[in-house]
Amino acid sequence: MSRAGAVYPASRVTLREVGLRDGLQLVKRFPSTTAKTEWIHREAAAGVKYFEIGSFLPVNRMPQFADIHAMIGLCDELGVHSAALALNERGAMDAVKTAAAEIVNVVSATEEHSQANMRRSREAAISLVAKTAALAAKAPHKPLVQAGIAMAFGCSITGAVDPDDVVRLAIACVEAGADLIGLADTVGFAGPDQIADMTARTRAAVGDIPVSVHLHDTRGMGVANASAALDAGARILDGSLGGLGGCPFAPGATGNVVFEDLVYLCERKGFATGIDLEKLVAVREIAAVEMPDEPLYGALASAGVPKLMAWRA
Amino acid sequence: MSRAGAVYPASRVTLREVGLRDGLQLVKRFPSTTAKTEWIHREAAAGVKYFEIGSFLPVNRMPQFADIHAMIGLCDELGVHSAALALNERGAMDAVKTAAAEIVNVVSATEEHSQANMRRSREAAISLVAKTAALAAKAPHKPLVQAGIAMAFGCSITGAVDPDDVVRLAIACVEAGADLIGLADTVGFAGPDQIADMTARTRAAVGDIPVSVHLHDTRGMGVANASAALDAGARILDGSLGGLGGCPFAPGATGNVVFEDLVYLCERKGFATGIDLEKLVAVREIAAVEMPDEPLYGALASAGVPKLMAWRA
Repeated sequence: MSRAGAVYPASRVTLREVGLRDGLQLVKRFPSTTAKTEWIHREAAAGVKYFEIGSFLPVNRMPQFADIHAMIGLCDELGVHSAALALNERGAMDAVKTAAAEIVNVVSATEEHSQANMRRSREAAISLVAKTAALAAKAPHKPLVQAGIAMAFGCSITGAVDPDDVVRLAIACVEAGADLIGLADTVGFAGPDQIADMTARTRAAVGDIPVSVHLHDTRGMGVANASAALDAGARILDGSLGGLGGCPFAPGATGNVVFEDLVYLCERKGFATGIDLEKLVAVREIAAVEMPDEPLYGALASAGVPKLMAWRA
Repeated sequence: MSRAGAVYPASRVTLREVGLRDGLQLVKRFPSTTAKTEWIHREAAAGVKYFEIGSFLPVNRMPQFADIHAMIGLCDELGVHSAALALNERGAMDAVKTAAAEIVNVVSATEEHSQANMRRSREAAISLVAKTAALAAKAPHKPLVQAGIAMAFGCSITGAVDPDDVVRLAIACVEAGADLIGLADTVGFAGPDQIADMTARTRAAVGDIPVSVHLHDTRGMGVANASAALDAGARILDGSLGGLGGCPFAPGATGNVVFEDLVYLCERKGFATGIDLEKLVAVREIAAVEMPDEPLYGALASAGVPKLMAWRA
């Protein structure tokens, strides 16, 4: 079994709450540390065990992640998995000094996006994966390293993305030492058949390295794409409470796929999540109070969890 | 080929706009006849060819459908398909006197719902299908008769629904003369695997009779369920502009699956719809002006139709 396989067992579905990282990426007003603490506490009590909680960046660039050390400490204390982004070597060095259980590097699927967004080549991004993996191997708690491939299903600059490129990048990231490959539909271009195809191809290419799928609901395909990813064998999916997150390239667009709706999807597809939907939905009140200008999405929260539980029959 | 097969070719996907019927079912304030006329005109210009436009009921019970004759006349004039509900024999007799291209009867999947909602047995509902089919056969323009099976994936009263019951009812409706079977997730309980299974089983049971799938997005599964229905061979899907419709059993819940997002799903899955998404999305302004209190759903309308059209690549 791969190292990541012990953390993400292939025998069940893992849902990762990225609301506290991707969900806060674009907001101007963000939750207080106290509110974030309550958010994680209550979601952990509802059964959520995987949190992406921030990005190691200069505080003046991303003040919403200034309390990242406190969030990592909290996850450690609660016994839940914490993942944090490191977008450069400095971030990776900072990350390995913490108890973060997973460090996430990002590689763009297209050279054009890599240059425009990160001012570096894809090759340089893969070098960062290697450096992060080396740092992680030396750290006492040996955090996992995820290589997340941004724009894997469509690019805000080039439009279409060659699936062969994505598979090649995934293999290169694994060779560089990544424990986990993330396929990200960063701008919500993907359709379900494309998700199924890419998930299956990537899984076939990387052997026992787990493949996670990170979806945005920008064009309403989020849950359909998640269903297709599960059908293609993906067992790790990202989502954010209330669908927080938005899209940097489409102002006013919906954000990450709604975490609550993902839980419902999995349960309806026969994958037990161990997450109490009523308790999870109730956590939305924190986001609503702390970020009153951010729309919260998700049909389940409006309809309510089915009282009749017909879906459990 | 069945009679309905000529209207709904199995070789392509047909998307039916039910916003002017199911979408108006629960509203107190509804669009004027002038606004409805513009709605149909503009959607027809965008490429929509199938409309469900009302229900033959006493005007004092459902004033939103008082102009049903005008809407049928308009569809006839524009050369687009008009479908109308007939929930009793009087409705069926009224319907066959018009140019409506399709008459929709409703049969509940469970005896409990049939009695509670329609105060009749499922057997009586199937008798109405036979009566409607006889009336339609005598009418000069021979409208199609659809038997829509409500609560086919979960019932607001019983919770779970026996799929064998649904298949038996579908067969009984075909034997009674239905040209088309509709499977309706009336309260949005279904998940994608259930949709796929029921669609495949029903299709296998009814031979060359087309099977349409009518979805609600009550719990966020609408598009995922539509994708599963297409994968299982369904080629007729219902949706409503902006997801109008709500749910009588869950106040505040989302309504029918969003028509615009259905179009995007189909195009992303390689099914050409012939519908211009930009023009379709623009029609939402009519609903927004005429029904300012009704929320309009749909991610695509917020994000915009992808300029890069990566999904066409």
